[in-house]
Amino acid sequence: MQFSAFGHKFTRNSGILQLMDDLGKALHSDRPVNMLGGGNPARLEAVNRVYREVLQDLVHNEAAVESIGNYSTPQGDARFIDTLAAFFRHEYGWDIGPENIALTNGSQNAFFYLFNLFGGRFGSGEDAVDKNILLPLAPEYIGYADAHVEGCHFTAVRPAIEAVEHEGEAGFFKYRVDFDALAQLPELKAGRIGAICCSRPTNPTGNVLTDAEMAQLDALAQAHGIPLIIDNAYGMPFPNIIYSPATLTWHDNIILCFSLSKIGLPGVRTGIVVAAPEVVNAIGALNAIVNLAPTRFGAAVATPLLADGRLKILADEVVQPFYRQQAKRAVQLLKQELAGYPMHIHKPEGAIFLWVWFEGLPVSSQTLYERLKAAGTLVIPGEHFFIGLDTADYPHASECIRISIAQDDTTLQNGIAAIGAAVRAAYDAAR
Amino acid sequence: MQFSAFGHKFTRNSGILQLMDDLGKALHSDRPVNMLGGGNPARLEAVNRVYREVLQDLVHNEAAVESIGNYSTPQGDARFIDTLAAFFRHEYGWDIGPENIALTNGSQNAFFYLFNLFGGRFGSGEDAVDKNILLPLAPEYIGYADAHVEGCHFTAVRPAIEAVEHEGEAGFFKYRVDFDALAQLPELKAGRIGAICCSRPTNPTGNVLTDAEMAQLDALAQAHGIPLIIDNAYGMPFPNIIYSPATLTWHDNIILCFSLSKIGLPGVRTGIVVAAPEVVNAIGALNAIVNLAPTRFGAAVATPLLADGRLKILADEVVQPFYRQQAKRAVQLLKQELAGYPMHIHKPEGAIFLWVWFEGLPVSSQTLYERLKAAGTLVIPGEHFFIGLDTADYPHASECIRISIAQDDTTLQNGIAAIGAAVRAAYDAAR
Repeated sequence: MQFSAFGHKFTRNSGILQLMDDLGKALHSDRPVNMLGGGNPARLEAVNRVYREVLQDLVHNEAAVESIGNYSTPQGDARFIDTLAAFFRHEYGWDIGPENIALTNGSQNAFFYLFNLFGGRFGSGEDAVDKNILLPLAPEYIGYADAHVEGCHFTAVRPAIEAVEHEGEAGFFKYRVDFDALAQLPELKAGRIGAICCSRPTNPTGNVLTDAEMAQLDALAQAHGIPLIIDNAYGMPFPNIIYSPATLTWHDNIILCFSLSKIGLPGVRTGIVVAAPEVVNAIGALNAIVNLAPTRFGAAVATPLLADGRLKILADEVVQPFYRQQAKRAVQLLKQELAGYPMHIHKPEGAIFLWVWFEGLPVSSQTLYERLKAAGTLVIPGEHFFIGLDTADYPHASECIRISIAQDDTTLQNGIAAIGAAVRAAYDAAR
Repeated sequence: MQFSAFGHKFTRNSGILQLMDDLGKALHSDRPVNMLGGGNPARLEAVNRVYREVLQDLVHNEAAVESIGNYSTPQGDARFIDTLAAFFRHEYGWDIGPENIALTNGSQNAFFYLFNLFGGRFGSGEDAVDKNILLPLAPEYIGYADAHVEGCHFTAVRPAIEAVEHEGEAGFFKYRVDFDALAQLPELKAGRIGAICCSRPTNPTGNVLTDAEMAQLDALAQAHGIPLIIDNAYGMPFPNIIYSPATLTWHDNIILCFSLSKIGLPGVRTGIVVAAPEVVNAIGALNAIVNLAPTRFGAAVATPLLADGRLKILADEVVQPFYRQQAKRAVQLLKQELAGYPMHIHKPEGAIFLWVWFEGLPVSSQTLYERLKAAGTLVIPGEHFFIGLDTADYPHASECIRISIAQDDTTLQNGIAAIGAAVRAAYDAAR
């Protein structure tokens, strides 16, 4: 069978598809694997207990049968949207209503829409111009990479790297937005940027862009008449996996994306977009054509939990402390394994990953990944996260790996021991 | 905010979006409306009772919490796929396995993928060629119209219209594929068709293409090395809303699309694609990029019902007889209202609609729609279903309307009385 150009773009052997295939195969193989590669959130019994309760309520009060038996509008489940609007008004004082909220089939689906709404070809004929999505701070989420329906429309800027302490200890660094480089960016000057986007906390690094950095990005977006898209999948108010002081700001030039996945509901595929009504309408129109209407069972589960405060309690008292402890544990294990080696860990400020930089690593992180895979441990090599950057002359990109910290302690111990052995061997062989 | 060309295409005021907006507003207005416009399936208590039971089971046996708390692979929920493969092997004797099945976020989502995989630009540079999706029998499902990421890539062929009896009565017609016109189609001869697609039973007409017609389309597709896509949303084995003898055939040049919506689960957004592994892989890749993974709660609900035969019993003993009776009732009401007027009803062979042709109607069906809307009854005007045809010189297209028969008897009576009054007035005014 012959596929269109669109078909070839989406089925070619891209880095991310190859990786996902690897991860999927590993999960389904008989061999035990230390899975530090994926983005699955941890299954926490205290969380599941609450979901079990709410599921039982939904069966009893008929809300479950109502939810599965009716389409929502293309904008999404109306009760959940009303509940979200009330929650955001109360929690943050934002002046928003249902016209500012659309639901999608998970956050990935929202970014597919947004990157194609604000990146790609603008205008037609001789006036047509290609615009990119600006990622002001590489590395960024690997799932963005292939989202455009045609071509790849990202521009990214290398990070400034700052050595920092973490909880009084050295050996850490923090990426900073290089605003000088941004100010000089030819695409921005030429009007060839359609939107600015960052995840906060950042997947893969666990970085939390500071309020000052966010304010500067906000001002930059407004100055260029383009929206600022913030991927809040790990951020406030749920799952709230964030340990650094940070403020969540919204106004009608900001597009905020939330997800129910990391609060423990990845299977229901529910993303939330808070934006100006024209963006919400566009997402509704895309939902209608791409999906008829978004799935709504996630809305049914989350509505009562958001309304009575249990979702926020789960985030603040169960989910966030769990990952904070996991980050501490993983840091401790890594420091034990690689004492005396030039390893730096990105300051863990949130999300469910550690980002580890092996300075001057004699092999690429892709090679390290393959060696680790052969030894039964899966991580994600760093270079895939530098979307929109040519990493050929940027060794830092292939000296980093992303490690999931969502696994149980045994997996974390065994996986990090394997990483330690492989990294030590790589350095030692080059001595 | 500036949107890309993609954004403009999907947010422009297209006929279908305008209609959906009308329908949505009508549903949420305070005025009572006879809703004969939408595609919502009926809520049947005997169906809901089974879903209530299975939901309770899923809570007790932990399958619900497992389903909402974990991603599936991009291909879809593995247990449901295995269960489907076993079901199709047993029910139809097809030689298929999990590698032949992918899940999507509803059937609309599957068609968004398939129409872009097989329609649009093929190749690149000077060798690039645009290919269309061939709809061999217009009218076809309105939801196909806007599915292409760029432009509109459909070619359709006018139907042959045959006067037929229905249950011993006259006043009916049946659309037939015009194979002579198909054989002469310039796009097909020039290799500019990427796939052939039809819905069976057809939305909007309730037509069931005969086995002979399907065999000819199958042969045509094979002769041109392109797939035959069959939209089975109303067909066998579930919801099985089909009253004419028909055989369901599959081989690796056929792409069969199924849905859980019309068996009463529209809210869970679960579509099923049965196809050659290369198509299943492409859909998995698209799921990964567009949605990360498809939603899986529909799979959790349907798996036990498919495995123990309850889904098939619901289809055959509850859903199908209900719509068959509704069709009979709507035909009776229409014939009462419009006795002596040149009305013809498409032979009701399945699906949840009647397609009514007012021959020589002095106003367009769009005008009729607007008059009915003002009078509190919603239908869908026929011209919107002739996707891929220029209807300017084809009056038949604007002499038809689609009526949903999923509503209760009072709505059906009042709605059809309003249609009768408006149509009689239109004919009478022109005398």
